[in-house]
Amino acid sequence: VAGKIATQAGAFMLEKPLGGRGLLLGGVPGVAAGKVMVIGGGVVGQNAAEIAIGMGAETYVYDRSIDRLRELEVLLNGRCSTCYASTLEIESRLGEMDLVIGAVLVHGAKAPRVITRDQLSLMKRHAVLVDVSIDQGGCFETSHATTHSDPTYEVDGITHYCVANMPGAVPITSTWALTNATMPYLLKLCDQGVHRALGSDPGFMRGLNVAAGRLTYEPVAQDQGLQYTAPEDALAAVPVL
Amino acid sequence: VAGKIATQAGAFMLEKPLGGRGLLLGGVPGVAAGKVMVIGGGVVGQNAAEIAIGMGAETYVYDRSIDRLRELEVLLNGRCSTCYASTLEIESRLGEMDLVIGAVLVHGAKAPRVITRDQLSLMKRHAVLVDVSIDQGGCFETSHATTHSDPTYEVDGITHYCVANMPGAVPITSTWALTNATMPYLLKLCDQGVHRALGSDPGFMRGLNVAAGRLTYEPVAQDQGLQYTAPEDALAAVPVL
Amino acid sequence: VAGKIATQAGAFMLEKPLGGRGLLLGGVPGVAAGKVMVIGGGVVGQNAAEIAIGMGAETYVYDRSIDRLRELEVLLNGRCSTCYASTLEIESRLGEMDLVIGAVLVHGAKAPRVITRDQLSLMKRHAVLVDVSIDQGGCFETSHATTHSDPTYEVDGITHYCVANMPGAVPITSTWALTNATMPYLLKLCDQGVHRALGSDPGFMRGLNVAAGRLTYEPVAQDQGLQYTAPEDALAAVPVL
Amino acid sequence: VAGKIATQAGAFMLEKPLGGRGLLLGGVPGVAAGKVMVIGGGVVGQNAAEIAIGMGAETYVYDRSIDRLRELEVLLNGRCSTCYASTLEIESRLGEMDLVIGAVLVHGAKAPRVITRDQLSLMKRHAVLVDVSIDQGGCFETSHATTHSDPTYEVDGITHYCVANMPGAVPITSTWALTNATMPYLLKLCDQGVHRALGSDPGFMRGLNVAAGRLTYEPVAQDQGLQYTAPEDALAAVPVL
Amino acid sequence: VAGKIATQAGAFMLEKPLGGRGLLLGGVPGVAAGKVMVIGGGVVGQNAAEIAIGMGAETYVYDRSIDRLRELEVLLNGRCSTCYASTLEIESRLGEMDLVIGAVLVHGAKAPRVITRDQLSLMKRHAVLVDVSIDQGGCFETSHATTHSDPTYEVDGITHYCVANMPGAVPITSTWALTNATMPYLLKLCDQGVHRALGSDPGFMRGLNVAAGRLTYEPVAQDQGLQYTAPEDALAAVPVL
Amino acid sequence: VAGKIATQAGAFMLEKPLGGRGLLLGGVPGVAAGKVMVIGGGVVGQNAAEIAIGMGAETYVYDRSIDRLRELEVLLNGRCSTCYASTLEIESRLGEMDLVIGAVLVHGAKAPRVITRDQLSLMKRHAVLVDVSIDQGGCFETSHATTHSDPTYEVDGITHYCVANMPGAVPITSTWALTNATMPYLLKLCDQGVHRALGSDPGFMRGLNVAAGRLTYEPVAQDQGLQYTAPEDALAAVPVL
Repeated sequence: VAGKIATQAGAFMLEKPLGGRGLLLGGVPGVAAGKVMVIGGGVVGQNAAEIAIGMGAETYVYDRSIDRLRELEVLLNGRCSTCYASTLEIESRLGEMDLVIGAVLVHGAKAPRVITRDQLSLMKRHAVLVDVSIDQGGCFETSHATTHSDPTYEVDGITHYCVANMPGAVPITSTWALTNATMPYLLKLCDQGVHRALGSDPGFMRGLNVAAGRLTYEPVAQDQGLQYTAPEDALAAVPVL
Repeated sequence: VAGKIATQAGAFMLEKPLGGRGLLLGGVPGVAAGKVMVIGGGVVGQNAAEIAIGMGAETYVYDRSIDRLRELEVLLNGRCSTCYASTLEIESRLGEMDLVIGAVLVHGAKAPRVITRDQLSLMKRHAVLVDVSIDQGGCFETSHATTHSDPTYEVDGITHYCVANMPGAVPITSTWALTNATMPYLLKLCDQGVHRALGSDPGFMRGLNVAAGRLTYEPVAQDQGLQYTAPEDALAAVPVL
Repeated sequence: VAGKIATQAGAFMLEKPLGGRGLLLGGVPGVAAGKVMVIGGGVVGQNAAEIAIGMGAETYVYDRSIDRLRELEVLLNGRCSTCYASTLEIESRLGEMDLVIGAVLVHGAKAPRVITRDQLSLMKRHAVLVDVSIDQGGCFETSHATTHSDPTYEVDGITHYCVANMPGAVPITSTWALTNATMPYLLKLCDQGVHRALGSDPGFMRGLNVAAGRLTYEPVAQDQGLQYTAPEDALAAVPVL
Repeated sequence: VAGKIATQAGAFMLEKPLGGRGLLLGGVPGVAAGKVMVIGGGVVGQNAAEIAIGMGAETYVYDRSIDRLRELEVLLNGRCSTCYASTLEIESRLGEMDLVIGAVLVHGAKAPRVITRDQLSLMKRHAVLVDVSIDQGGCFETSHATTHSDPTYEVDGITHYCVANMPGAVPITSTWALTNATMPYLLKLCDQGVHRALGSDPGFMRGLNVAAGRLTYEPVAQDQGLQYTAPEDALAAVPVL
Repeated sequence: VAGKIATQAGAFMLEKPLGGRGLLLGGVPGVAAGKVMVIGGGVVGQNAAEIAIGMGAETYVYDRSIDRLRELEVLLNGRCSTCYASTLEIESRLGEMDLVIGAVLVHGAKAPRVITRDQLSLMKRHAVLVDVSIDQGGCFETSHATTHSDPTYEVDGITHYCVANMPGAVPITSTWALTNATMPYLLKLCDQGVHRALGSDPGFMRGLNVAAGRLTYEPVAQDQGLQYTAPEDALAAVPVL
Repeated sequence: VAGKIATQAGAFMLEKPLGGRGLLLGGVPGVAAGKVMVIGGGVVGQNAAEIAIGMGAETYVYDRSIDRLRELEVLLNGRCSTCYASTLEIESRLGEMDLVIGAVLVHGAKAPRVITRDQLSLMKRHAVLVDVSIDQGGCFETSHATTHSDPTYEVDGITHYCVANMPGAVPITSTWALTNATMPYLLKLCDQGVHRALGSDPGFMRGLNVAAGRLTYEPVAQDQGLQYTAPEDALAAVPVL
């Protein structure tokens, strides 16, 4: 969800009254389309690129995996350029871009920095940066979280859109997406009860956070300096209903 | 230009914090895409539909000309539904729509009303109306012009986006588009001088507004109660340089 | 093969003289296309959807795996809606459909019931059901196998097309498809003889049904109450030529 | 409408139990798709080709106008072969075809013969011919009109599908299409009355068949040996209500 | 034909051993595709662009007609950038291009110059120019006709491919294309004889070059200083067979 | 890279002055496109087919894996025919082909022979064979390596293009592609030093060819009759800097 919102927000922020360059991403016949750089070719980046392509922008997706770039050529029907995400390659194109979307998500870790403050000077004035990684600390050096009521700020002439929890803006879509993902677990719980449902599915068991007054999710325990109990052990202390 | 802006603005206004239903136009796998009705299948409507399709929405274009609907099937690659623009047909679908774009432009005339205030009650709460015809008086009964700094208002639970002069939001794109269209005339003027340039091109002559102190554009003359002089006659009084 | 036949048969059965609603699946400009629901997003369902999309129908594919729905978005080029296959979701759309194709195939098991007789009352009169799962018992409560000479029957005003062995209708295509799949095994047999060919390929060995007068395929043995011999053991009793 | 029905009927008639070759038009990976020849590249032929392409067939459209072939390349997205409709060219390909659709419609005239009985001998046994021109006398020498209850017959081993009034099989679609085309005239009649509505639109006037007891449509008068009165004259005798 | 050959020749000439930059027009995942500028958006330019897009190049088509650029967006499925052909616009992009195809054909006149020798200095070393207008004098200042046996030469480090009569390289395709265009006239001649065939078709009559020893094609007469006779008059002196 | 070059070279070699049949691969409206057979559906064959499709040719890809053929249908968007690579199937189509591309690459082994000298007699005179497998010995019986300066020769009337090291013709593209693939290893070497970089990545270790005067790549050792040392052992003798 976040990737699609990122592009639609970025396109809108490019309008002049909203602080952008005053450019229509899709162009018109005889007038060049805008250029969009998507850094990070995972699911989020792919979704961001899909919408950019659909709006008619010239789109460049950056990733460090050649295999993933190959997949993206197919997934995006060859309608964007795929680029190797080296600093050299990013810097060589940054000056042409109207919209840059940071979608560098590393599972369970802080996002790496892919654009420094210095590199902003390479960009066109009033180009727009959208940082989808903001919930993990942001992937631009100059990113800090904003809100829907005051979504953008400017650094060195570049508009930043760094709204935290972007999917929260489309609760209908996000809720259905979440429900579709959780429903199978819910049904299993109802059908089999807690012990059997978790016992027969190691992935489900790992999702247990608290049982019988024990903290059973290790990262949270470490982060909070509390004691961790293995979920199987904690669950054994819960009476079967 | 206006058609493309209309859809991108409408998509953005569907976000909850901006007053919309809180729905992502493009959907995600397993969650239905939003539905967009474009009323009016001219160039503006076609552009609006193109962006809606590109963003992944289920798109319905309405027009009264079967020939134009046939063309649109080709122009839009069969990726939207084309519908005959009768009141019956519009009302039968209005309740399913998330975004309705009014693009009913009649050359040199006030836009006809295609959705009445009563019909708003058929719509989903917080669906979004975008009125591209607002510069010609608007094509929804409840439309009135707004500005980029305060773009929307609500009537009967329906969000209205009726910003006047939408292309003004993307001056880079609009200026180039305008320049491309006017440049051939400018070059002709420079090469041939006023008399020969206008004299050899009746369409160019009709574009003359004022010459030798005379008003040479009839609609303005009528509107302002001033005397009209044929452009050829007025121009004859201008000395050739 | 079966999926493609299912849609082409269903499209044809929608014609009035054949008992259908009298609707052209592809629509024409200005007249809405028909709607097709494909339940089950495996290879069969994907093929059924491809033909439905190719014929111009508005197509909805239902599956319980979000990952598979994501794949289908790519495989079908984003030209259909992908939906989570819950009862709620199916019932909410059933009333709009002209053609419903049941393609719920569970490997080696009886097909689950996805539409009950009660749910037929939600559907449009003379809509068409095609049950591709009929060879595994059918996935609609009201399905029973029919033949090409008398392919349809009606239950509660809904036309059912449940021809057993649909691929048998296109023997040229089916035979080539089967030959392509079996040829590598045949060549191996000819090149290496039975013992070496089966001995070097565990999958091939498992395909042995009878050897040296012994039944070597376990499910059949169980089903028929006969004695099962492991294929390796039975084969050992066969002299090498 | 007729073109789309023609292909869907032809695809179905290719099934073995219906008298065809027993071939799936769309093929499967590794097995060649069927080949479809559409003779006549007008709107009917274009629609027939669209469905054939959508079903995955290798499609060849024949027409005598190079300009129209160029248009068809675009309209059909380059997904079929366009061929010049000479006898030589048709005969050179006829032997490869599984389905041949005759869509040679000449406005207000008998359809020309594009395949003779002799040429049937060039074709594969149990290939299928569909004659959409049958309402104008048919464009194959061996065509004669059939009905939906007994749609096909065989000549020299070739299956013929020549159902008269094919659009009658899909009354929902056909009625809406007809209504969309006639509605503007109906509204004009209601708004302006007969005299003004016809008087202001020469095309509408020419559509008048009978007025004040006079026959006002010339071809019918000639055909039936009755007297013809110009519609303007007959209408003058009708009192204005 | 010429436009398609131009791109395929240009792609090949970009290979290092043939004198080009040593670049693959289509790129590979992670390596940018080559850039192709097509100057002139007529049928020839459209064909050149189609092949460039098909080979995976980033393609820019230049024309002076906004209406034609709009058509090209549709004809080329939005897969290239359309640009207004001003000197400013051409110069601003020339430095990025790997291949430039000149396809500026003005009916019956010398091709205008669109790239001067000075502008070559803006280009990348060993970029390739292909001049399809060479049969009309060439549209680059530095063009002169070459032959298939020695197709290229270099000026200021830029490779020029200016083979005269490019369609002559593919006689099978060109002959069929020519035959399709001339066959209807030939058939008319055979069916009706010279007098009636030409007499009933003014366009055909204008194509007559010589009759009864008279020169009947005016431009040739003027060019050669010979006497011109109107074709109708000359033909009257030819006996009807 | 090689696959794309193969098709663009093959298309060019089909021109008459270069020894080919004199046919434009893409055809023109009304004139059939050329036919291209790609034998081998791996990455190279897929790339060759992509360019062939992009140039407008009728394309047939042959492979022995039905699963891969299924993938190719998706990867190539259903725009080519996929065929099972049996001798029967290849021979049955060989006579229709204008261009045959051999792309049968077996990892680390000599390419198998897929077309014999006898089979050349089935082909059209001056059809073109391109052998991408030439660096592994070639996949046509009549192949032998050629150079860019003298790329083709003729056997039994069939033009052979068998240039060794085809990617060498586009050094810009090939170098970037190679750099993208090797850069991660280079960075690891610089960051961690040789011992840690290779020690922590078994794949990297296997890539070591020579260390401390020892040959550490087994196939080369065998081929040259030299002594082989395991890379871990040889590396242990190298001092850590």
